[in-house]
Amino acid sequence: MIVMSGKEVGSALEAHLSAEVAALAARGVEPCLAVVLVGDKPESQTYVATKVRTAQRLGIRSVDVQLPASTSPAELDAALDGLNADPAVHGLLCQLPLPGHLDAARVAERIDPRKDVDCFHPYNFGLLAEGLPRFVPCTPQGILAMLRHYAVPVAGRHVVVLGRSNIVGRPVSLLLSQKGWDATVTVCHSRSEDLPRYTRQADVLVVAIGKPEWVGPEHVREGAAVIDVGVHRVPDAGRPRGYRICGDVRHDAVAPLAAWLTPVPGGVGPLTVLMLMRNTLRAARLAAGLDVA
Amino acid sequence: MIVMSGKEVGSALEAHLSAEVAALAARGVEPCLAVVLVGDKPESQTYVATKVRTAQRLGIRSVDVQLPASTSPAELDAALDGLNADPAVHGLLCQLPLPGHLDAARVAERIDPRKDVDCFHPYNFGLLAEGLPRFVPCTPQGILAMLRHYAVPVAGRHVVVLGRSNIVGRPVSLLLSQKGWDATVTVCHSRSEDLPRYTRQADVLVVAIGKPEWVGPEHVREGAAVIDVGVHRVPDAGRPRGYRICGDVRHDAVAPLAAWLTPVPGGVGPLTVLMLMRNTLRAARLAAGLDVA
Repeated sequence: MIVMSGKEVGSALEAHLSAEVAALAARGVEPCLAVVLVGDKPESQTYVATKVRTAQRLGIRSVDVQLPASTSPAELDAALDGLNADPAVHGLLCQLPLPGHLDAARVAERIDPRKDVDCFHPYNFGLLAEGLPRFVPCTPQGILAMLRHYAVPVAGRHVVVLGRSNIVGRPVSLLLSQKGWDATVTVCHSRSEDLPRYTRQADVLVVAIGKPEWVGPEHVREGAAVIDVGVHRVPDAGRPRGYRICGDVRHDAVAPLAAWLTPVPGGVGPLTVLMLMRNTLRAARLAAGLDVA
Repeated sequence: MIVMSGKEVGSALEAHLSAEVAALAARGVEPCLAVVLVGDKPESQTYVATKVRTAQRLGIRSVDVQLPASTSPAELDAALDGLNADPAVHGLLCQLPLPGHLDAARVAERIDPRKDVDCFHPYNFGLLAEGLPRFVPCTPQGILAMLRHYAVPVAGRHVVVLGRSNIVGRPVSLLLSQKGWDATVTVCHSRSEDLPRYTRQADVLVVAIGKPEWVGPEHVREGAAVIDVGVHRVPDAGRPRGYRICGDVRHDAVAPLAAWLTPVPGGVGPLTVLMLMRNTLRAARLAAGLDVA
């Protein structure tokens, strides 16, 4: 069984991104990512801090905008409009989840599609769904990088995606089904009947259902590649912090069957934030009128 | 075996649409569909004529713009801009295929998303892919109407879609996989290996691969619903016109297995043009600030 290491894939990618930052600097472009956080949810603060830290490490400027939980829709619009209008800002995102009185769909539409490095704007999501993506959402892009790096056969094979969210399940299923990747893709979800019937057929199983250690050996075909997108904190009195991190997959039970398996932590997670940086560089190149790969 | 008749579903829908036209008229709104045709391809002329005739029959005004095959991209842009700017025009489409020197993606982006009754604009396609459609593309909408009318069980069942085009296969697979329809959906295409392995598992098989009479009994599970989206002219010396119309499915061979089957002609085809009218009425209601269902 091959462990698909996000750290291994990520370190190659980091070198590539650093070189790209240097190439942009040589042309007078300082790439910049703006992150807006509404409220003070500790988990969201941690995510934002990781994004800001990663940007700094790669030489990408970051703008960190913190707004109170009481921010009104109009105030949030105004903050986003200001960042949209700032030519020094290339990438822009608003950390989710938002406080209950704010609407994520409204925010997604307010962000300039040219700066929408999360690929949540319907225009960008439509380009993606039509097979002509400008930005590829970060976690799906990490999954693709993992499959490419470990040369997992995908074309013509059966990919089963567990989960239909607009952040992971839906876009990764679209991407792998399109020309180039050419997989036969099945999307399963909470309303699917007899899940093992589908998952046991998968050559590649992408698990993004958000349920801790829910997928076991009864779901996995021998020789499959299993991509675990889940990240959960599970109480564990035996650990110093009182919890441990796990995914959507029971790794010990699935490892004897799988030919490839992503660990949690250290699998897809570290790639997600790097792909955010990659999208920021892409936005900077697009804004500067430079060729993009 | 139940024949899923587009004429039967369509006549109920026509009555509904006529009532809707009357309701709009009572509020002073005359719905209007503009159809742009570039060039004089006979098949395209036939499609446009059907759209114009159907609009007239339902009391929808139609604007029929014919441009020469030599029309430049800028000239086509100008024609579309004029129709975009005309408040009396609610729905706008450009008949495909375009002459080789014109780009369908550019045209799709030029049409005002509020008038985009084909749902080809990336913004509208993104809303659809995200599960919040403003317009539902016409043929997929006809397929949904067929499934609803004949009460074919879909939720939790396995839908297999043959074909991944942005006009039929992709959007219908997205729609049936989303909340509400809740099917487990597999998308197969020309690069899928061992197609019968997938199609024989289908409770609902949607065939949109564009190959005459390509799907046979070896692809169909007993008791399945089979939706045939194909329309082809096949040479047939025994017919008065020298050809016959067929679909992507070998109907005689599949009928003994299928529990539901759409005929060709008279299946999904007649619904597609009606759904275009339905989208036009929806666009008119949206433009007038009226509630939409």
